[in-house]
Amino acid sequence: MQKIEVKLAKNYGFCFGVRRAIEIAQSRPNSVVLGELIHNPKEIARLERDFGVGVCEDIEKIDPAKAVIIRTHGIQKNDLSKLKERGADITDATCPFVIKPQEICAKCSREGYEIIIFGDAAHPEIKGVVSYCENSTPLVINSLESLKAAKEQNKIKSKVALISQTTKSAEVFGQIAEFLSGICSEVRVFNTICNATFDNQQSARSLAKEVEIMIIVGGKNSSNTKMLYKISSEFCENCYLIEDENELNVEWFVGKKSCGITAGASTPEWIIEKVLKRIKEF
Amino acid sequence: MQKIEVKLAKNYGFCFGVRRAIEIAQSRPNSVVLGELIHNPKEIARLERDFGVGVCEDIEKIDPAKAVIIRTHGIQKNDLSKLKERGADITDATCPFVIKPQEICAKCSREGYEIIIFGDAAHPEIKGVVSYCENSTPLVINSLESLKAAKEQNKIKSKVALISQTTKSAEVFGQIAEFLSGICSEVRVFNTICNATFDNQQSARSLAKEVEIMIIVGGKNSSNTKMLYKISSEFCENCYLIEDENELNVEWFVGKKSCGITAGASTPEWIIEKVLKRIKEF
Repeated sequence: MQKIEVKLAKNYGFCFGVRRAIEIAQSRPNSVVLGELIHNPKEIARLERDFGVGVCEDIEKIDPAKAVIIRTHGIQKNDLSKLKERGADITDATCPFVIKPQEICAKCSREGYEIIIFGDAAHPEIKGVVSYCENSTPLVINSLESLKAAKEQNKIKSKVALISQTTKSAEVFGQIAEFLSGICSEVRVFNTICNATFDNQQSARSLAKEVEIMIIVGGKNSSNTKMLYKISSEFCENCYLIEDENELNVEWFVGKKSCGITAGASTPEWIIEKVLKRIKEF
Repeated sequence: MQKIEVKLAKNYGFCFGVRRAIEIAQSRPNSVVLGELIHNPKEIARLERDFGVGVCEDIEKIDPAKAVIIRTHGIQKNDLSKLKERGADITDATCPFVIKPQEICAKCSREGYEIIIFGDAAHPEIKGVVSYCENSTPLVINSLESLKAAKEQNKIKSKVALISQTTKSAEVFGQIAEFLSGICSEVRVFNTICNATFDNQQSARSLAKEVEIMIIVGGKNSSNTKMLYKISSEFCENCYLIEDENELNVEWFVGKKSCGITAGASTPEWIIEKVLKRIKEF
């Protein structure tokens, strides 16, 4: 095969919160995480294999003898209270950038603002943030269109606080803020999109414009990884989301001269290196 | 000349605040207004002629024997204090929709937010609002471009409160809110554009799309009138801003089949009626 130029995105991979959570997990061998610590199955398997750090999805089934780690995405307020009541040995690996929207949600709902969250209602981070809302139920919307639909149903109040899932698109967040500014008397816009996510998105966008094929490495259940795939797809025709080097297909590279690589915030460097090595072998 | 169809905008002319100010002025004959009560020279001349209500631009030259009316656009905090210290007989005709941004400016600046005002720094309303800012100087910007320039100069802080002049474009205000949402950690967006202004703008826009010529009636020093002219010009090639029927030019109407009419928030009905009558005479 002809030689292919491989370029890494300027910013990619591990964010501060993920790096911190992995360090916490490694420092607490044989503990259990309530839910997946980060959205990367390979890294979770490594933590279990090398450090005995397991995953338990059901709070009722957690072994009372084990130390408990709170996942990067945070958990629901009630679950945290339950663990504390039981006297569990808790280490909180919730990303500080996720704690912020939880606190904003609590404070602004107490002050009488309607909470609108730009995010996926089913994502653990958003389930956690929602649980901090007091006296009301936040409106969770996943697009500008669903916000407009809520408006049509008169579901938007005049005093609103807008929060974002940390891994959402900054562009759409701005459009949502713009729309709310036109229909509410006050909108408190809290840009809770994390910088690492934003930087990774920007770098993926500019790299995708330059190359013929883009490889996005990350968990298929990872929001920010999927967002990198979506952004790349807007600018590059041939984008592939893979969890590791074994999913690479040599045929993707036939006749291509340039390949860009980026990775989600929960993708460890060792996986990216294996992907790079495999592409060079082709 | 062939027959021309004349259509009035669905919403046009006097807003609540202007109507209220004129009623106040009429109920206080022989008083003096600090600055122009509203931005319409013809109506101001009528109030002077029929009610002896004069205008004084300089607070130091106000006749101490006269009752003082505060203009719809409001005045600066210091000027109000001066009048009160002198024991002047004050009637406040400041539009309630202008008092709101004054209050927001005071409150949010006290709470440590940087105040950004979308408006004309030279307009009396904005001079008034700015004067209510405590401990800091608001950033007054008149366009998205000037906001971007301020950003380049690192003049935007991370916690911002955004206010609008009551008569500004809702569309640009939304774009400004969107831009700030992308660069600040918190933006409190207060949509202080008055509904009447917004309705007049919407109606002018849809009428301008339908007709061959648009007549905008209002003071040439009136912000909201100029905005109606600007919006109409985007959709209709032949737009004319006039203060009264004497400025109408028969040649504008030659060969035209439809004419739209709108008027600023400070344009009294009696002027609009004279304009309509003159067009029918053509």
